[in-house]
Amino acid sequence: MKLLRYGEPGAEKPGLLDADGVIRDLSAHVADIGGGALDATSLAALAKLDAKSLPVVAGTPRLGACVAGTGKFICIGLNYSDHAAETGATVPPEPIIFMKATSAIVGPNDDVLIPRGSEKTDWEVELAVVIGRKAKYVSEAEALDYVAGYCLTNDVSERAFQAERQGQWTKGKSCDTFGPIGPWLVTKDEIKDPQDLKMWLTVNGETRQNGSTKTMVYGVAFLVSYLSQFMSLMPGDVISTGTPPGVGLGMKPPRYLKAGDVVELGIEGLGTQKQTFRADV
Amino acid sequence: MKLLRYGEPGAEKPGLLDADGVIRDLSAHVADIGGGALDATSLAALAKLDAKSLPVVAGTPRLGACVAGTGKFICIGLNYSDHAAETGATVPPEPIIFMKATSAIVGPNDDVLIPRGSEKTDWEVELAVVIGRKAKYVSEAEALDYVAGYCLTNDVSERAFQAERQGQWTKGKSCDTFGPIGPWLVTKDEIKDPQDLKMWLTVNGETRQNGSTKTMVYGVAFLVSYLSQFMSLMPGDVISTGTPPGVGLGMKPPRYLKAGDVVELGIEGLGTQKQTFRADV
Repeated sequence: MKLLRYGEPGAEKPGLLDADGVIRDLSAHVADIGGGALDATSLAALAKLDAKSLPVVAGTPRLGACVAGTGKFICIGLNYSDHAAETGATVPPEPIIFMKATSAIVGPNDDVLIPRGSEKTDWEVELAVVIGRKAKYVSEAEALDYVAGYCLTNDVSERAFQAERQGQWTKGKSCDTFGPIGPWLVTKDEIKDPQDLKMWLTVNGETRQNGSTKTMVYGVAFLVSYLSQFMSLMPGDVISTGTPPGVGLGMKPPRYLKAGDVVELGIEGLGTQKQTFRADV
Repeated sequence: MKLLRYGEPGAEKPGLLDADGVIRDLSAHVADIGGGALDATSLAALAKLDAKSLPVVAGTPRLGACVAGTGKFICIGLNYSDHAAETGATVPPEPIIFMKATSAIVGPNDDVLIPRGSEKTDWEVELAVVIGRKAKYVSEAEALDYVAGYCLTNDVSERAFQAERQGQWTKGKSCDTFGPIGPWLVTKDEIKDPQDLKMWLTVNGETRQNGSTKTMVYGVAFLVSYLSQFMSLMPGDVISTGTPPGVGLGMKPPRYLKAGDVVELGIEGLGTQKQTFRADV
């Protein structure tokens, strides 16, 4: 299933994308795509619905982030060996984790705001994992049992805020609108191997990132297990697993985003995003 | 006002502490202590109530975190010059900020779990600021207009997870139960000067921290303004402003917490916390 949330910001309704690419309304069956709706039983109940019998959503509504009520937006740093190299770093002996503020979450095609004073706003196409039920001290072997599905994220980053404004990356990762999530949450049964998905990103139509989750250093199952040793992962938590090469910071010379730029990105099976960047006034 | 939340975890009700130290129920007047209930208008309405007319809460209920629905739990690192010195660091030229997972939040007197594999669980008494309304790009002069009040936090930290397990402090700050908040949210009208509050912490009755918010490097108004340049602060967000000297990491040799240890802490005007530490099994 491809689950989604459509409608105006703060008033999104649950829906799904049917086999023909038509959005169908799920309001009669689930309150939202988040929390308890993400556990295996709830997802199985939704999967039994006849999609063709669900109300068609007219027009082309805005899409919100495909998961609601995210308590933690956890990101993995330098998790592709060639991306680490392009930023001048080495692959860490265990995962680097940091948090993005949940207030940064927006829909997949919403405008992204370049913060005041920013000169180094950058892009990062990433595979994200959505947690389906509480995970604490889980093994790698059982880790995927706790995953509801996958989605696409752009881990938008301000490199000066991240690295030149004192300690910890939070500042450069948490700006409003820096977390487009979606277009849909694809349940894990539809993704045969999360470690073999093509991914790409363009800026104004020019390819910048063109990689695959094959070159991820620490894979999805390892990461879920690893994180669960430090903290409980809760339904609706989102883990963005790092980016392949091709970010602006890694270009020679570095190139960053300016108002008017259009970023498009996608991951095989997970859909695409398109954002216009504009100044935050 | 001293606002609080009482009852079992996940089922807390709103209340207040009256002038005689009696807990009174606020359920008839506000849904919870969080979100829209924290804006100036809502707080003014609560302040007009005759506390003595509110139902007395019988017995000595468990207290939950004094604020509900916290979206961001932001912490400031090395914000006391003498604490920076004891950890071998220097005061940063601008604030270090990091996030604690909101899943770490517990009540002020709940047990704290020492995570599996931890050998360096440490304490940090801190003054926390609770945001009352959305703050974005606010000046230092107007910053306190966005603050609902203050509370006590223990920024429990696992030093090996924080500093010896690769990049970013999140891992050592986000473990379940590492964020006791409360006992009450004291509205800002009751705190004449947040930069002149005595604070202390004991372990098994022995004084470890004995300081004052006077020696804070970056004060409350500055921090609210500063953070709001990077991200929107939302009602219910909690900013924990750093700790004075006396943490376990700074002792020679360092001393950390073990199962059975009892930590008590307090800040002038904001009440006290008492936690028993135990192994997370």
